[in-house]
Amino acid sequence: MDSPGLHSVHVPDSDIGMHFGSLLDNQEGSDVVFDVSGERFHAHKLVLAARSPIFHSLFFDGLDGERNEIVVTDMAPKAMLHYIYRDTLVEDDMLVTSYVPESCVSDMLVAKLLAAADKYCLERLRLLCEAHLCREISVNSVASTLALADRYHAMELKDSCLKFAAENLAAVMRSSGFEHLKDNSPSLQSELLTTIAGCEEEYKKSRSDWGQLSDGEDSSGRRIRPRTDTDTNY
Amino acid sequence: MDSPGLHSVHVPDSDIGMHFGSLLDNQEGSDVVFDVSGERFHAHKLVLAARSPIFHSLFFDGLDGERNEIVVTDMAPKAMLHYIYRDTLVEDDMLVTSYVPESCVSDMLVAKLLAAADKYCLERLRLLCEAHLCREISVNSVASTLALADRYHAMELKDSCLKFAAENLAAVMRSSGFEHLKDNSPSLQSELLTTIAGCEEEYKKSRSDWGQLSDGEDSSGRRIRPRTDTDTNY
Repeated sequence: MDSPGLHSVHVPDSDIGMHFGSLLDNQEGSDVVFDVSGERFHAHKLVLAARSPIFHSLFFDGLDGERNEIVVTDMAPKAMLHYIYRDTLVEDDMLVTSYVPESCVSDMLVAKLLAAADKYCLERLRLLCEAHLCREISVNSVASTLALADRYHAMELKDSCLKFAAENLAAVMRSSGFEHLKDNSPSLQSELLTTIAGCEEEYKKSRSDWGQLSDGEDSSGRRIRPRTDTDTNY
Repeated sequence: MDSPGLHSVHVPDSDIGMHFGSLLDNQEGSDVVFDVSGERFHAHKLVLAARSPIFHSLFFDGLDGERNEIVVTDMAPKAMLHYIYRDTLVEDDMLVTSYVPESCVSDMLVAKLLAAADKYCLERLRLLCEAHLCREISVNSVASTLALADRYHAMELKDSCLKFAAENLAAVMRSSGFEHLKDNSPSLQSELLTTIAGCEEEYKKSRSDWGQLSDGEDSSGRRIRPRTDTDTNY
């Protein structure tokens, strides 16, 4: 056997995202335009169709093959195109810059990107957005993030929000986001109750497994975690 | 802090290569054809141009924008397109199946792929081919691989071949591939001599560093490594 140092060749990481990213930057050969209130972003039907089954139907299944302009509202086409061509999420600082504090999660760029992922079936983008929003969950934002996750079928994020809210119920119920949830989403409230019931069962099971050290205290089985927005790095 | 199990979302690996691979398989929207002795492979100018500066010049710099057929000989367009769209080398078994033993390295599929990488400036493909050929270096193949590496500007592979041949000189000189090298490539012979001289210098230095345990033996400073083709898994 030969030593790896002498007789081996180092192969760099994939550069396909960088190559298609250049195509997006240069706009060469572009044949479709996204129009957002007059701002225009040039793209390529072929790339959009390769990456999204919805664009594929739009351009290749004869439904709308000649269409060369797509008008979008309340989405983030620039960040969506970044993902489609580069296969990465826009940088974290871009995502955070757009953030407006106090329960306005739906105003964040990443929320618009999640809407785009849902609309155009960009499954990996959906999970990238879910992972980002999941890291930002706090007592003040969780109700708003839960509503967003429910709306755009972000099931892993929704599950995390429900668990977080169940574990920090008293604090979450005092947040302004929860007021909105209470008024607008009775179905999410009942899902939260189901989650709490599940947590109680689990807690009771673990308490009986470990032996009952004290009686009559904390009968709800909830663990209160007083995490606030100041915990996260906005 | 919350436990990662509860409040995190798993994001799968990049799928962009798979998406463009489907485009290649389905041939949808293809606008250019590779012709190899009558066998035809459909592709997309946009993808080729994004991945190769040579195809970019061909299609976008006005030299030959209307061209829709590319005739190739002695290359492996199917395996090249696999790389261009999927960003991976074709499976190892495909590369090895095409192998003809006894110094016929230039008949291997990976050699044709290296030729394509050189012609179309596919730098990462070149390194993938170099890495593959580097793993296959043996006493019987090294002369042929060295000539190939020199021809297609595979500098890391060439360097590894020269070092391997210098370290196993006597055995390599008895191989049939070396006969061919002797007759056809005087410049590579002198590069081999330079490498041997370099190895001797290095050996002498290490011998003086470690102290001279015996005199008069192995004055060439070469380490003989009797590796043959049977060592590798053809």
